[in-house]
Amino acid sequence: MANVAGVFRVLSVSSSNASAVSPCSPKFSSSSPSAAAAAFASLRRAGSPGNLRERNSFQIGQSHTSLMGQAKPKSVAPIRAGGLISPDGAVLVDLIVPQREKGPKSEEAQSLPQVNINKIDLEWVHVLSEGWASPLRGFMRESEYLQSLHFNALRALDGSLVNMSIPIVLAIDDAQKETIGKGKAISLVGPAGNTVAILRNIEIYKHNKEERIARTWGTTAPGLPYVEEYIRNSGNWLVGGDLEVLERVKYNDGLDHYRLSPAELRAEFERRNADAVFAFQLRNPVHNGHALLMTDTRRRLLEMGFKNPILLLHPLGGYTKADDVPLEWRMKQHDKVLEEGILDPETTVVAIFPSPMLYAGPTEVQWHAKARINAGADFYIVGRDPAGMGHPTENRDLYNPDHGKMVLSMAPGLERLNILPFKVAAYDKTKGQMAFFDPKRADDFLFISGTKMRNYAKSRENLPDGFMCPGGWQVLVEYYQSLSKKQDSEKKVDQLQQAPPKVMENPVAV
Amino acid sequence: MANVAGVFRVLSVSSSNASAVSPCSPKFSSSSPSAAAAAFASLRRAGSPGNLRERNSFQIGQSHTSLMGQAKPKSVAPIRAGGLISPDGAVLVDLIVPQREKGPKSEEAQSLPQVNINKIDLEWVHVLSEGWASPLRGFMRESEYLQSLHFNALRALDGSLVNMSIPIVLAIDDAQKETIGKGKAISLVGPAGNTVAILRNIEIYKHNKEERIARTWGTTAPGLPYVEEYIRNSGNWLVGGDLEVLERVKYNDGLDHYRLSPAELRAEFERRNADAVFAFQLRNPVHNGHALLMTDTRRRLLEMGFKNPILLLHPLGGYTKADDVPLEWRMKQHDKVLEEGILDPETTVVAIFPSPMLYAGPTEVQWHAKARINAGADFYIVGRDPAGMGHPTENRDLYNPDHGKMVLSMAPGLERLNILPFKVAAYDKTKGQMAFFDPKRADDFLFISGTKMRNYAKSRENLPDGFMCPGGWQVLVEYYQSLSKKQDSEKKVDQLQQAPPKVMENPVAV
Repeated sequence: MANVAGVFRVLSVSSSNASAVSPCSPKFSSSSPSAAAAAFASLRRAGSPGNLRERNSFQIGQSHTSLMGQAKPKSVAPIRAGGLISPDGAVLVDLIVPQREKGPKSEEAQSLPQVNINKIDLEWVHVLSEGWASPLRGFMRESEYLQSLHFNALRALDGSLVNMSIPIVLAIDDAQKETIGKGKAISLVGPAGNTVAILRNIEIYKHNKEERIARTWGTTAPGLPYVEEYIRNSGNWLVGGDLEVLERVKYNDGLDHYRLSPAELRAEFERRNADAVFAFQLRNPVHNGHALLMTDTRRRLLEMGFKNPILLLHPLGGYTKADDVPLEWRMKQHDKVLEEGILDPETTVVAIFPSPMLYAGPTEVQWHAKARINAGADFYIVGRDPAGMGHPTENRDLYNPDHGKMVLSMAPGLERLNILPFKVAAYDKTKGQMAFFDPKRADDFLFISGTKMRNYAKSRENLPDGFMCPGGWQVLVEYYQSLSKKQDSEKKVDQLQQAPPKVMENPVAV
Repeated sequence: MANVAGVFRVLSVSSSNASAVSPCSPKFSSSSPSAAAAAFASLRRAGSPGNLRERNSFQIGQSHTSLMGQAKPKSVAPIRAGGLISPDGAVLVDLIVPQREKGPKSEEAQSLPQVNINKIDLEWVHVLSEGWASPLRGFMRESEYLQSLHFNALRALDGSLVNMSIPIVLAIDDAQKETIGKGKAISLVGPAGNTVAILRNIEIYKHNKEERIARTWGTTAPGLPYVEEYIRNSGNWLVGGDLEVLERVKYNDGLDHYRLSPAELRAEFERRNADAVFAFQLRNPVHNGHALLMTDTRRRLLEMGFKNPILLLHPLGGYTKADDVPLEWRMKQHDKVLEEGILDPETTVVAIFPSPMLYAGPTEVQWHAKARINAGADFYIVGRDPAGMGHPTENRDLYNPDHGKMVLSMAPGLERLNILPFKVAAYDKTKGQMAFFDPKRADDFLFISGTKMRNYAKSRENLPDGFMCPGGWQVLVEYYQSLSKKQDSEKKVDQLQQAPPKVMENPVAV
């Protein structure tokens, strides 16, 4: 009984007897509801949380008598009569200056102290400008920074808490601070030399990097990608304020059409008459196990009574570490997955989430989920070890792989979001297709890791039939081959020139 | 306007023109209200937060247009018709088994797997048993631990958040885990060999020390006292569960009569007809600057309309680091302060807070405040750098000295508590007494640090008149002298025996 709250907020979206999706099937599965799913749907209608513990439900903690440690008791979002989930703070923040004000503001910006920002800072300007972090209206001031670090949540003026688990801050160095002097506003100059934004009513405060890193990542070990590349050598001050962005951030990499703002996504969901939006955050190629999960989720939402659940397939598009598959290749791969009918284009929206990746596990997964509320999603799919990675100096996962979904399900400010955890899918050798892993017949399953995929691709071997659609796999083969060629040619050049090992501008210490 | 919320929750309790308390004056000051205090009181009655920014109000952030970063808008606690502030979770937890059940439970405990606990674990059993951590009913299970680490707050069953900023956990090692096996309950055996408690419905989970330290202290640098003495060498597992304590924890050190439980404190406040209780946490001797602050606070609460504000002078009595003045000496010193009338015994309750000290700054100060709500306090006095210390490996404060009160004023679950920040008091040479520091005439003030006090005491010099009452100072002289003697004699013994340096059982690495 004591765990009802935790169980109730977290819906099970897989069951070991759920139908498996066919490899490259032309449409998503429309198999009859599994017994578990039917039970789930009826329980939900009955509003009887005590009975919700079906076998795949995610349970926080154990059955015990403690009063504590439970998520807020709530039912899943009611089937909406109309309208999407409201953004955090009720109004979606839009920090891009209206066209008519662009001229005067650009002119004003020239008169202000100039602060150069880097590629990641610009990604955060992008994130802030479109309201992904609503109701945040600019880089954090100290009170916001402290709330984020200590509570993973900010207090809105009405007294409610909105989730905000990672500090969105702008570091400046001593010289930049000197330049600003007693100025109340600054202009931000992007890596390309163009004036990007004005930051007003600024507050400058100390950048205690050690504390920021420790509280955000839960470790200060060297080798955290974002930390080594963007924090260790950053300035000793942070500057917060209200952001006015002069024009929409574009990358001109052929992918800008995928970069839909939260407002654009909301418009698209409304155009499609979505009555549920379920978001899937990823930074890897989509294999048929992912597809199985997504189609199964839709099926279950339909069984719950939703008429038109829409999937937001939402690859992260900002900074990622060097050994992740680059965005352009991932987008090519995702295109193939839709082209070949593994996911239904009618019920799927593919867009890029512009945030950089922190690899901060349970802390970061809250950000990933919160940002999707602002884009209109009321269901969020969470996997094992979200935003996790190996410990940079020890031979273990940096985070307990279960902590991500536990923390997400209990996070202040995310009470309105329905968390959909999923069981691992793997290649079922007996069926020749991806299926939810069944521990009772573990030997029937094959796990294909990123390293394995890479080796298959390098040796031009085909993956087992049904692991990934052929077109998607060909994209990856092409990518990994290009990588080998590049490495080979770099190796040759190095050997020819007897050059010393290349020193990276921002070395990743491991 | 945007800052109203933050300002409103934090009351100013000092003003530079407040009357200074006389050295060893027979009664606390009853000087006429200062202009600022009068303004404060009238503003409060008018319920006009926008005007509350008197000059000494603590202000979070700056005046800006952000919607974020503000504490929940609320007025100070209304003057109560009767009854103290309710404990977190509405009911004060009491985990001590009723007398009639003691026999059977003690017997049962003998049949359970035995786990030996150390001195600090026992202090936490004490804390939990009396409800200081209400509504927590035992050592934390994993879901509670994660909420504490990530959010500094726990979700109660009614959906509300209660503050809980530090993990209250019990570490066990591999052998102890083995002993427990699949047991559902264990008995805890104290350092003296007696069975202290039963822990039921247990949950065992991994003790990721690095993550716990990083998220609690904001650093993983070696040399944090609590960490080095009680975490680094502790077991790799944590065990949570529901605690049943066989009898009240006693120390038999002649100070148990000061160890009032939250229930006893509440009874005492009610007996005195308190209509406001203001708590002062300390782990140092009381000098006249402290006394000035406390008497001034009472004066201002009276001006606000309270009829009988009672001070809870509440020294921390659990583990403290080696160079803090030990509890027994502090209690002797506090006794003198009341005996000599520096504080009014009629309106002051002196008791010991049984928690160990973590020196975890902004994270820990929330715990210090939250526990006092459970003891009936609705006002909490917070100083500069609460629970702070020097960085263990760098030449700086570990925490920004302002962060403690900022974090405290914004913390989830502490909305009901009125935070009373105070300005530093120092020895005003022009007046020959302690007074609130006035930066406009900084040269008139003398700051007397702990190190300075120690040197005065060693050389048997008197402190400046008016710094501390003579009786209290004599206690400290005696303590510091005893310390020198002890050190001298240890030195002699060492020299005589040519012994190697003494290795502490739990060495503090610095």
